[in-house]
Amino acid sequence: MYYKSLGKTELENELNKLKSRYNSFKEREISLDMSRGKPGPTQLDVASDVFNAKTNNIIYKAENGFDCRNYGVLDGIPEAKRLFAEILGVDDSLIIVGGNSSLNMMFDTVAQGMSHGFGSEPWSKQGSVKFLCPAPGYDRHFSICEYFGIEMITVPNTADGPDMDIIEELVKDPAVKGMWCVPKYSNPTGTTYSDETVRRIAALKPAANDFRVFWDNAYVVHELYEDGDTLLNIYEECLKHGNENLVIQFTSTSKISFPGAGIAAQAAGPDDIAKIKKRLSIQTIGYDKMNQIRHAAIFKTLNDVNEHMKKFAEILRPKFEVVLKLFEKEFGGLDIASWTKPKGGYFISLDLPEGCAKRTHTLCKEAGLVLTGAGATFPYGKDPKDSNLRIAPSYPDVKELELAAELLTICAKIAVIEKVLAE
Amino acid sequence: MYYKSLGKTELENELNKLKSRYNSFKEREISLDMSRGKPGPTQLDVASDVFNAKTNNIIYKAENGFDCRNYGVLDGIPEAKRLFAEILGVDDSLIIVGGNSSLNMMFDTVAQGMSHGFGSEPWSKQGSVKFLCPAPGYDRHFSICEYFGIEMITVPNTADGPDMDIIEELVKDPAVKGMWCVPKYSNPTGTTYSDETVRRIAALKPAANDFRVFWDNAYVVHELYEDGDTLLNIYEECLKHGNENLVIQFTSTSKISFPGAGIAAQAAGPDDIAKIKKRLSIQTIGYDKMNQIRHAAIFKTLNDVNEHMKKFAEILRPKFEVVLKLFEKEFGGLDIASWTKPKGGYFISLDLPEGCAKRTHTLCKEAGLVLTGAGATFPYGKDPKDSNLRIAPSYPDVKELELAAELLTICAKIAVIEKVLAE
Repeated sequence: MYYKSLGKTELENELNKLKSRYNSFKEREISLDMSRGKPGPTQLDVASDVFNAKTNNIIYKAENGFDCRNYGVLDGIPEAKRLFAEILGVDDSLIIVGGNSSLNMMFDTVAQGMSHGFGSEPWSKQGSVKFLCPAPGYDRHFSICEYFGIEMITVPNTADGPDMDIIEELVKDPAVKGMWCVPKYSNPTGTTYSDETVRRIAALKPAANDFRVFWDNAYVVHELYEDGDTLLNIYEECLKHGNENLVIQFTSTSKISFPGAGIAAQAAGPDDIAKIKKRLSIQTIGYDKMNQIRHAAIFKTLNDVNEHMKKFAEILRPKFEVVLKLFEKEFGGLDIASWTKPKGGYFISLDLPEGCAKRTHTLCKEAGLVLTGAGATFPYGKDPKDSNLRIAPSYPDVKELELAAELLTICAKIAVIEKVLAE
Repeated sequence: MYYKSLGKTELENELNKLKSRYNSFKEREISLDMSRGKPGPTQLDVASDVFNAKTNNIIYKAENGFDCRNYGVLDGIPEAKRLFAEILGVDDSLIIVGGNSSLNMMFDTVAQGMSHGFGSEPWSKQGSVKFLCPAPGYDRHFSICEYFGIEMITVPNTADGPDMDIIEELVKDPAVKGMWCVPKYSNPTGTTYSDETVRRIAALKPAANDFRVFWDNAYVVHELYEDGDTLLNIYEECLKHGNENLVIQFTSTSKISFPGAGIAAQAAGPDDIAKIKKRLSIQTIGYDKMNQIRHAAIFKTLNDVNEHMKKFAEILRPKFEVVLKLFEKEFGGLDIASWTKPKGGYFISLDLPEGCAKRTHTLCKEAGLVLTGAGATFPYGKDPKDSNLRIAPSYPDVKELELAAELLTICAKIAVIEKVLAE
C-alpha cells in the first residue's frame, strides 16, 4: 500500500490536502443518495413512455378470456406466467406470478417454511434453523432471517460465486434449511455465478431434505453491455441430480418497468409449487391481474424485455462508468482499494483496507453523500473486516455521480491515512 | 311447517310436482354461479368507465411530491391514507395502505400474531391459540385459522351481531387471542352490528392482553338503499375504554373499483401499527403506489366513494330484489325457510329446516346452479344444523337470477319434503 511507504510528515501533508478538498465539498452542501439500487427519474420516464403508448388500461381480458378486473386466478394469467417461464427457464406450470414485490414472495416463502415447512415438519418445530448467507450479499435477505430468528452463517464469495467447498460442508448440518443466492450480477458484488458453481449448487445433497436454495434472480436481464454474463439454467441442472425441489427462484420487473408497481414471480419444483399455491389459496383471492396484463401486453417475450432493457443500459452504463473512472483516477496506483466492474446489475462493490469502511461512510455522510450503511451487506449488519462498501450509482445523474465518486474517494483516502497514522 | 300438515299421499303428490319442475330446469342445461360475492360484468364496466375517464396512468407524483413509480413509502401515499382514514373513521397515522387484497393483510396480521405476537410472546409459543368465530361467517376467515392451527370457537349470531353474552364469557380464557367480525352487512347474514354490540366489543376486557378483534369492514360503503344501516365507530368506542389496541380494522376497494385490482387498507392502534410497519419493513419495499394514486385521483373523499357506490346500488338492488321476490313467492306461507333482507353488502343468508342445506346444495348443483358449499360459512366447514345456505346474487344478471332463485326454492322444497317423508 502506497501510504505505508510514506513517513509521518508526508502522510500528514497528504491528509491535509485531502481534508482541504473534503472541506470544499462540505461547503457546497451537496445532498446525494447512493444508498439503494433505485432507478433514476430518466429511467422511469422511459418506462412510462413504453406503458403510456399502449393505453394499456383498457385491456381486461386475458388470452384465456378471463376478466382480469374480477376475483380469481391464484398463480397468474397465462401470458404473464409464460413471460416469467421464459425469463427463468422453466415450464409455465412451475411459475406463480405475484404482486409487485419479489421480496414479499421471498418473505412469505420463508414464513411458510417456518410455520409449515417444505417437508414433514415446520422448520420452527425442528429446533434451531440456519441459513447460509454468501456475503457481502443483499441486506434485505438477511433481514428476513433476523425477523424469523434464523441463524445466519456467513459464507465468503469468490469470483465464481459463493465458496462451494464451504457450502458443501455446511449443508451436512440438518439444521441448515436454506441459502440465499443472487446468482447474476450479484448484489452487491456484480459477480455472476460460474457454470461450475451453478452445477455444484444443483448437485447439493443436503442432510435436510427440506433445505431450499433461495435463488433471487433479480438482475436476470439487467445488462449494461452487449457482451453480458451468462448464467446456467439452475432448474435444468437440478433435474440432472434428482433435485427438482431444491431451488426456489424469484424475479420481478421492478427494474424493468416500475420499482413501485412492477410484477414479481417465483418458480419452484412441482411439489413446492403445490405447497405454495395451497398457502396462497388461504392468503389471497388473487394478485393484481390488471397489472399483470398491462405488463404482458408490452412484454410478450423475453426478447421484448431484452430490447427494452437496452434503453435502460444506455442510461445506466454512463453512470457506472463515471464512478469506475473516478475510482481508477483517484485510487489508481495507491493499492488501497479494489472494486468490481460489473457488466450488469445495480451495484459496484468497493473493498477498502480493514477498518476503513465505517469511517468512510461517516465522512461521506457528513459531507452530504448517503451510502448504504457499512456492514449492511453482511449478516447481522456486521462486516467482520469493516472494509466493504456498496455503491449504488443508478439514482443520481452523471454529473452528480462524478461529484459523489470524487467525494467518496477523498473520504476513503482520509480514512486509510488516519488508520495508517494511528498504527 | 306446512308440509307437516299434509298426509303421505299429499306430500308425494307435492314432491312429484316439484320434481317435474326440477326436471324441466335440468333439461335447460343452465350453468349459473351464485357461490361467491363476485361483481358482474356490468358493474366492472361502470368502474372501468370511471377509471378510464381519468386517463389515470399519467399521474405519478403523490401530493407530497413522491414519485409513485419508484421504490419506497411503506404505509401508503398520503392521499390514499387520508381516504381510508375517512372511510374507517380513524386518524391518517393509524392507516396502512396495502396491495390489492385485504384478505392478504388479515392473513399476514394473523401470521404476525403467531410468529411474533402482539404482546410479549408469539401466540404460537403460548400453547393453544383460540379465535372466536361468529357463525355463519366468512369462510376465508375460518380458513386462515385452520391454516395456522388456531382452534375456532363458534359463536351464534343474533339480529344485533354476535351473541355478546357468550363472547364476554369466552374472552376470560387467556388462550383466546382473536375474534372475527364483519360488522356491517355481515357476510353472509347481511346484519349490521347494533350500537350496543359495538359498545360491548369495544369495552371487552379479555384475559389475554394480546387478544385482538379482526374487524373486517368489507362492506363499509356498500349500500343497496339510501336508508342504509349505520355502524358505530369502533375505534372511538375503544378509546373510551382505554382499548386503543384492541381492534385491527380492514377494508378494501375490491367491491368499489376492481375485485382483482383494488387497494386494501388496515387500521389499528398506535402500538400495533408500529409493530405491523416493522414487519412490513422486512417484508416489502412498498406496495403498488401507482395503483394507490390511480384510486386516490378518483376517490378524493368518502363522499366521492359514496356517490360512486350509488351506481353500483342501481345494478345490485334489482338482483337482490328478484331473489327476495322469488323467495317470498315460493316459500311464503310454507314456514320452511327464513332469510335475511339486507340493505347492503353482497349476500342473502337462507335458513332451511335442520338437515336440508346439503341436500338442497346437491340438487342445485345437479341442475347447473353452483351455490357456496353448505357448511362453508361455519368453522371447519361444518354447519351443526346443516340448515344455512349463503346466496350471492351479485354476479348473474337479473334474468338468470330469476331462474336461479326459482330453481333454488324448488330444490329446497324437495329437500324438505324428502326429509318429512323420511321422518
